[in-house]
Amino acid sequence: MTRLFPPIEIANIGTKLFVAAGAGEAESCIASESLITSSLMGHDSHGVLRIPEYLGFLADGRIVPRAELAVDRTSQATAIVDCGQGFGAVGARHAIELGVTIAREQKTASIITRRCNHVGRLGAYVHQAADSGMIALATCNSPVYGHDVLPFGGCDGRLGTNPIAYAVPTGRDPIVADFSTSVAPEGKIRFARNEGKAVPDGWILNANGQPTNDPNAFYGPPRGGILPLGGSAGHKGFALSLLVEILGSVLSGVGSQDKEVFGNGVCFIVIDPTAFLPLADFRRLMDETVAYMKSARPAPGLDEVLVPGELEFRTMRQRERDGIPVDDSTLTAMRNHAGRLRMEFPDF
Amino acid sequence: MTRLFPPIEIANIGTKLFVAAGAGEAESCIASESLITSSLMGHDSHGVLRIPEYLGFLADGRIVPRAELAVDRTSQATAIVDCGQGFGAVGARHAIELGVTIAREQKTASIITRRCNHVGRLGAYVHQAADSGMIALATCNSPVYGHDVLPFGGCDGRLGTNPIAYAVPTGRDPIVADFSTSVAPEGKIRFARNEGKAVPDGWILNANGQPTNDPNAFYGPPRGGILPLGGSAGHKGFALSLLVEILGSVLSGVGSQDKEVFGNGVCFIVIDPTAFLPLADFRRLMDETVAYMKSARPAPGLDEVLVPGELEFRTMRQRERDGIPVDDSTLTAMRNHAGRLRMEFPDF
Repeated sequence: MTRLFPPIEIANIGTKLFVAAGAGEAESCIASESLITSSLMGHDSHGVLRIPEYLGFLADGRIVPRAELAVDRTSQATAIVDCGQGFGAVGARHAIELGVTIAREQKTASIITRRCNHVGRLGAYVHQAADSGMIALATCNSPVYGHDVLPFGGCDGRLGTNPIAYAVPTGRDPIVADFSTSVAPEGKIRFARNEGKAVPDGWILNANGQPTNDPNAFYGPPRGGILPLGGSAGHKGFALSLLVEILGSVLSGVGSQDKEVFGNGVCFIVIDPTAFLPLADFRRLMDETVAYMKSARPAPGLDEVLVPGELEFRTMRQRERDGIPVDDSTLTAMRNHAGRLRMEFPDF
Repeated sequence: MTRLFPPIEIANIGTKLFVAAGAGEAESCIASESLITSSLMGHDSHGVLRIPEYLGFLADGRIVPRAELAVDRTSQATAIVDCGQGFGAVGARHAIELGVTIAREQKTASIITRRCNHVGRLGAYVHQAADSGMIALATCNSPVYGHDVLPFGGCDGRLGTNPIAYAVPTGRDPIVADFSTSVAPEGKIRFARNEGKAVPDGWILNANGQPTNDPNAFYGPPRGGILPLGGSAGHKGFALSLLVEILGSVLSGVGSQDKEVFGNGVCFIVIDPTAFLPLADFRRLMDETVAYMKSARPAPGLDEVLVPGELEFRTMRQRERDGIPVDDSTLTAMRNHAGRLRMEFPDF
C-alpha cells in the first residue's frame, strides 16, 4: 500500500537515518533532500525508495560517509571533481555549483566527476544551474555491471540507460529535460515483471537477439537487452548513448569495461547565455519559444502540448500540497534500518 | 539515371560554377568540396545535388558571394560568428576552426553563428574538429518556414528536423554521429512521395493529427507534420529538438518565429580531452570502447555492430575509388546554370 506523507517529514527522517549510519549532518541533508525532491517531482523511482538502498550502501561501504571532495581545476574553464565515493548527490551538486561559478567567470565550463556514486535524478543538477541563469547539459553513464542496453544492431548489452539532461532558464519555470537514451529505463521493465505484465513492442530483445514482450526474457538468465531509443532509427539512440559513455567514462580516464568502478560518471557542460545576449532578452525569447511550442494544436485525445519539465513542476506543486507517496515496503525497510541503527522511528 | 564520376572532377566543376556566379575562388572551393565530401560519405541528399540549389541561391541573393565574416569574441571561451549570409559551409567551417583554436587555449569553447546559410552535413564540421584531437558537439536549427516537425503531443509543426552531430577522436577513424532529431528527415518523405511509395508507421501525421503512411497527406495542403524521434518515447526526441532550437535560435538572439531569418542556426561546443587526460590515453581508451561496442554479437540477420561514422568512412573509401553518383537531373541543372553563366560545361 502507498500513503501520502508531508515531504518535510520524510526528508527529516532520511537525514536522521543517514546521520545514524555515520554520515555528516550536511551531506545527509543534501542526500535526503535530493531524493525527496525526486519524489516531489513525480520521479518516484529516484525518490524515497532509494533511502533504504543508500543505507545499504553506507552499511557495505559502497557509499563512503564524510568523503572528501577534491577539485582539480584543470584549466580556466574545466575541472575534475573527485567525489571520493561519497553520496552521489553531494558530489554532483558540488560539480554543478563549480560549473556555474566557472561559467559565470568564463561564460562556459566543462566539469567531469570521478568516483561519484549514484547521483539520482540527473535533471536536479541542471535545474539548479538554470535557477542560476545558466544553460546546463548533463550526461551520466553507468559502469559495466549496468550495461543492459544494446548497441544498435547488436544483441549483447554494452551501455547503461545513459540519461541526458538539460535545463534552460525562461521567464517562468525553467525547461528541464531528463531522459534515458534507451527506449525505456530498466526500472519500467522490472515494474512490468513484478506486475506480471508484458512490455510494449520494441523495448527488449531476449538473449538470442529476438524481439520479445516478456520481461522475464530480458532478465534471463541468460540476460537479454534493452533497445536504444529510436526503434528503426535506433542508431540515433545508440549514438547518444555512446556519447554519454564517452563523456562519463573515457573522458575521466576510465575504461568502459573497468570492473572497479561503482556509481555514475557525470559530465556537466554549462553555458552562460549572457555570453551572447542579455539574460532578460534571453528569458523573453525563451518565453516566446515555449509559447510557440504550446500553441500547436494538441493531437487527438490530448489536452495540450507540454514542454520538458512542465509536468514535473505541476506534480511538484500538487505534491507540496498533498504529500509524497511512500509505499509500505519502503517504510518497512526504513524502519528496519532505524532498528538496526538504534534510532527512533515514528509510528506511522 | 545516375552515373559515377571522379569526385575531383565534379568538385572542380562546382567550384567553377560558383566562381562564374560571382563568388570568390576560395569560398567556392570550400563550398563545392563540402558538398562533394557529403556525396563521398554517402549523404547524397546533402551532396552534389545541392550545387544547382546553391547556384539558385546565389542568383536570387539568398547566398551573398564574397560575404564578410565577422567574429565577436564575447569572452575568453565563447564567440559569435556572423557569417554575413555567405556560403553556410564557409561560415560554419570558420566557426568550428575558431572553436578548435579557442578550445586549444581554454580547453573548452562555445561558438554560435548568426546569418549563416545552409551548412549542409553538420557532421563535416565536428569531424574536422576531431581530426584536430577535439571532442565536438554541434546543433543546427532551421527557421520557421522549415518547421515541419511536431512537438510531442501536438499536431502543428513547430521545429525543423534539427540535427545533432558529434565527433570524438580515436586511434583510428573518429566517431562521427550526425542525425536529425525527428524520426526521419523530410528528404526521405519527399523521396517516398516521388517514388509513389508509403512511408513506415510512426513517421508522419496528417493535418488533423492522425497517423498516416501517405506522404501526400504530409505535404497537403493542408500540411501535416513529421513526428519527433522516439515513437511512444517521442518526448525525448522533442526535448532534443527543442534544445537544438534554443541553441540555434534563442541563444543567437533570434525568435523561433522570426520570418526574416534564412539558413541555419549553428552551435558548436568543443572540448579538448587533454583538459582531463593525455590525448594518447584518451585515444587508447576510445579504441577499447569502440572494440567493446563492436564485440556485441550482431542481431539476427546482421553482420556486425557499426559505430557512428563507420559506414560513412567505408563509403568514402569505396567512392574515392569508384566515383560519386550524380543523377542526370542534377547534371542537367548544372549544365543549364553553366549555360546561363556562359561557362563551358564538359560533354558527359
